[in-house]
Amino acid sequence: MLPYKSLIQLKRDSSVALYIQLCNSFINLITNGTLQPSDVLPSTRLLTELTGLNRNTIKLAYEELISQGWAESVERKGIFVLSKLPALSEKKKTDSEQKTNTLEEAFSWTNPFKEIQISENYQQSVLTIDDGFPDVRLTPVDLLMREYRSISRKFYGKNFLKYGFPKGSENLRSALSRYLSDTRGLVVNPDNLLITKGSQMGIYLASRLLLTPSDSIAVGVSNYRSADEIFRYVGAHLLRIPVDEHGMDIDFLEDILKKQVIKAVYIIPHHHFPTTVTMSMERRLKLLKLAKEYRFAIIEDDYDFDFHYDAKPYIPLASIDHNRNVIYIGSVTKTFAPALRIGFMIAQPEFVRAAASLRQLIDKQGDSLLEEAFSSLFENGEMERHFRKSLKIYKQRRDLFCEILQSDFSGVIDFKIPEGGMAVWSVFDQSISLPKLSLEAGKKGLKIADGSFYNNEVFIPNGLRLGFASLNETEIVKSLELLRSVI
Amino acid sequence: MLPYKSLIQLKRDSSVALYIQLCNSFINLITNGTLQPSDVLPSTRLLTELTGLNRNTIKLAYEELISQGWAESVERKGIFVLSKLPALSEKKKTDSEQKTNTLEEAFSWTNPFKEIQISENYQQSVLTIDDGFPDVRLTPVDLLMREYRSISRKFYGKNFLKYGFPKGSENLRSALSRYLSDTRGLVVNPDNLLITKGSQMGIYLASRLLLTPSDSIAVGVSNYRSADEIFRYVGAHLLRIPVDEHGMDIDFLEDILKKQVIKAVYIIPHHHFPTTVTMSMERRLKLLKLAKEYRFAIIEDDYDFDFHYDAKPYIPLASIDHNRNVIYIGSVTKTFAPALRIGFMIAQPEFVRAAASLRQLIDKQGDSLLEEAFSSLFENGEMERHFRKSLKIYKQRRDLFCEILQSDFSGVIDFKIPEGGMAVWSVFDQSISLPKLSLEAGKKGLKIADGSFYNNEVFIPNGLRLGFASLNETEIVKSLELLRSVI
Repeated sequence: MLPYKSLIQLKRDSSVALYIQLCNSFINLITNGTLQPSDVLPSTRLLTELTGLNRNTIKLAYEELISQGWAESVERKGIFVLSKLPALSEKKKTDSEQKTNTLEEAFSWTNPFKEIQISENYQQSVLTIDDGFPDVRLTPVDLLMREYRSISRKFYGKNFLKYGFPKGSENLRSALSRYLSDTRGLVVNPDNLLITKGSQMGIYLASRLLLTPSDSIAVGVSNYRSADEIFRYVGAHLLRIPVDEHGMDIDFLEDILKKQVIKAVYIIPHHHFPTTVTMSMERRLKLLKLAKEYRFAIIEDDYDFDFHYDAKPYIPLASIDHNRNVIYIGSVTKTFAPALRIGFMIAQPEFVRAAASLRQLIDKQGDSLLEEAFSSLFENGEMERHFRKSLKIYKQRRDLFCEILQSDFSGVIDFKIPEGGMAVWSVFDQSISLPKLSLEAGKKGLKIADGSFYNNEVFIPNGLRLGFASLNETEIVKSLELLRSVI
Repeated sequence: MLPYKSLIQLKRDSSVALYIQLCNSFINLITNGTLQPSDVLPSTRLLTELTGLNRNTIKLAYEELISQGWAESVERKGIFVLSKLPALSEKKKTDSEQKTNTLEEAFSWTNPFKEIQISENYQQSVLTIDDGFPDVRLTPVDLLMREYRSISRKFYGKNFLKYGFPKGSENLRSALSRYLSDTRGLVVNPDNLLITKGSQMGIYLASRLLLTPSDSIAVGVSNYRSADEIFRYVGAHLLRIPVDEHGMDIDFLEDILKKQVIKAVYIIPHHHFPTTVTMSMERRLKLLKLAKEYRFAIIEDDYDFDFHYDAKPYIPLASIDHNRNVIYIGSVTKTFAPALRIGFMIAQPEFVRAAASLRQLIDKQGDSLLEEAFSSLFENGEMERHFRKSLKIYKQRRDLFCEILQSDFSGVIDFKIPEGGMAVWSVFDQSISLPKLSLEAGKKGLKIADGSFYNNEVFIPNGLRLGFASLNETEIVKSLELLRSVI
């Protein structure tokens, strides 16, 4: 007889009934090959002795096993594993044998993401110079909670809990239309607007709709890596265009356009990632003109519009585009909180409808509750109040951060004061190894990246984005002190 | 001179400063061609008269216009639209001319979703027999709010607002691992588990990773349309396998496998959509055996596991699969609230890692706040309490609903009492036109579908899923009365 006493492990404090646990134990023994078709099961009396369970519990388990089609009762002989079951496994393999049985062997697929790293843990709560994230301590969570409470009481029939719409909440689409018109002269109606989960989803949806394998897309020599990864994943060919202090070099682009077809151009007109330069108005207008002439789409990723410190930001290309070549992508995640994911895509109604269909295939819809709450925060002005308040604080932080860089890092870090955004693009002297710096800083309690995220096949700048927004003034002083000490 | 008085519209109650509004008005006039390069702008004095604005406001607007690169000041002559601006538009077109300038002309793309409908409005609050949705009036929103409040106070450094992880919250992954092991003998550790936004996202991610264009996937003759749409969208060829009262016909599948390569098989083992049949254990085991032999993946969409009324549900194929051919997909959205989107995918660690990378490209991560709240609800037992409570209520509703169908619709509707799920698969007598029925019912205040969602190229059943779960007993009686009255 099998060593049932050790094979059958029951949890008496579980919310799962004991007879179900027992039944599942037997299923497991059958499916892993310990019990084979036609094997006899122990009698209820014997099992009562071995497990200490009530005999009725055991009977119930056997009945369940029979009704699920795993066993059969043979009169006067006992209960047997169903003889006609296909043998599922050989007798149990040893552990080392099982390890060789990898996924690649079970079915065929190829992993296109072997190189991509994903994060699995929250940042340790040590001092961190990040890539340019907001300070979530400033996020008005209380206001959000107030909206949640009020919505969860107010909505008739709890509509906000039902299936919603792939385009997003009607209220939020109206509120955002007004906000975009007020802040950036972008006159859209809700038909032009799809709520997304952030800029990333906007780029993904636009890329899927615009690009088919072997299409070409123009991007900066330096560029936001997560966008590059999407373009590559959908099979597009990346054409790298130089980026200087006025943004993407549109004359260079024009020369290429004369020679080959480009399906789309991806730009980050405010605070190009990673170098934070803003595209000049002249180049913006020329790009629009080229788009009309050569019939390509412009994916305008303007995630950083709301954080511009000195002058007013330029109005988006989308606001000047009367030919409708621009697909405008923005986000509220950087301005409210990265984990509360609301973004938007602006385009012509048919493109928006197609993007909504694709979004519906991917995940049906957004988080209705969050969308309704954000809609209220825009309508009652709290969202803009929060933007203005944090803008003021971030400007102070930027100034302090850059002052210290200027005074303590001269000759070591080359940088320009960014007009907006949450990070300073800092090119380190070639004598400094960033991976080593990152390691040494880590030892002293300062978390800082090694710069590899900003590199690509043609751009290896020995640079880092140094995020100032998520650090208060004390933390700025301390973290830059630590950084200085390891250079 | 242009009719500035009517061209310039300012909102005095807006939160946007008047000088910015004025500046944006001029930009708009320039970009739509009303003002052309080198045109002179009205003097500040004149504009003061026309608009009633303070002269300093107008000066500020002009300064802004100049600093943004739209205009230039010429000494003693005035302010002009920048001469070197590329002319962006011809003189403004008439409305009818502009309408011919459609998106297809602006850049080239093809819309693969022309046939797909998307919902844009909340259901009217009329009586609705839906497709099998939960009753959101039972959703314990108060408990969710309590968790939200407690999390928003508790978390050190507001980690839940920062960027999180594409695999989902660690806490929720642990809680779900325990829950899945307790309820369905599915022994997984968090490495095997990806949090998604619902079953839909699980199917999308798995399809993208498994299927490349022209690969074949086996699906039921009748099948969940939104899954079919994903498979088609990624370019796969659909092989239709018959489905009878024991689920998908695996012998039929075997015959096909002898002749051609199949990359994956998609099944809904509990309560097949739309017909609600449950796959027998014998077929489940045979399918696993075939998967091992022919090396294909099984996408097991078990979204309905938690709602099984009479017997216990079968344990999933994933729980018996020692060869790891199964990608198991489940969801909490049907059991909690459709708009609060949390689902999961179970697979081998490498597949989960790849799915997380893809998810990261699509939308970075899930809603951390919701994930943390659900984690607490699983841990403190409230989630299972809610499941048990609603299971009991839905069983009563199913019984009442089926009793009435039996007594009042005999000869008109052919159905079997479903063992689980939230809908009765009802085949109507051929003399009844469902589109007409839907129309007539609508006139009497009963919203009911026209059945087209369940049809496909080989399956045209004149059938409807009649959802009973979202209706209370009074509503069930009334809605079936209304339905009877229009037949």
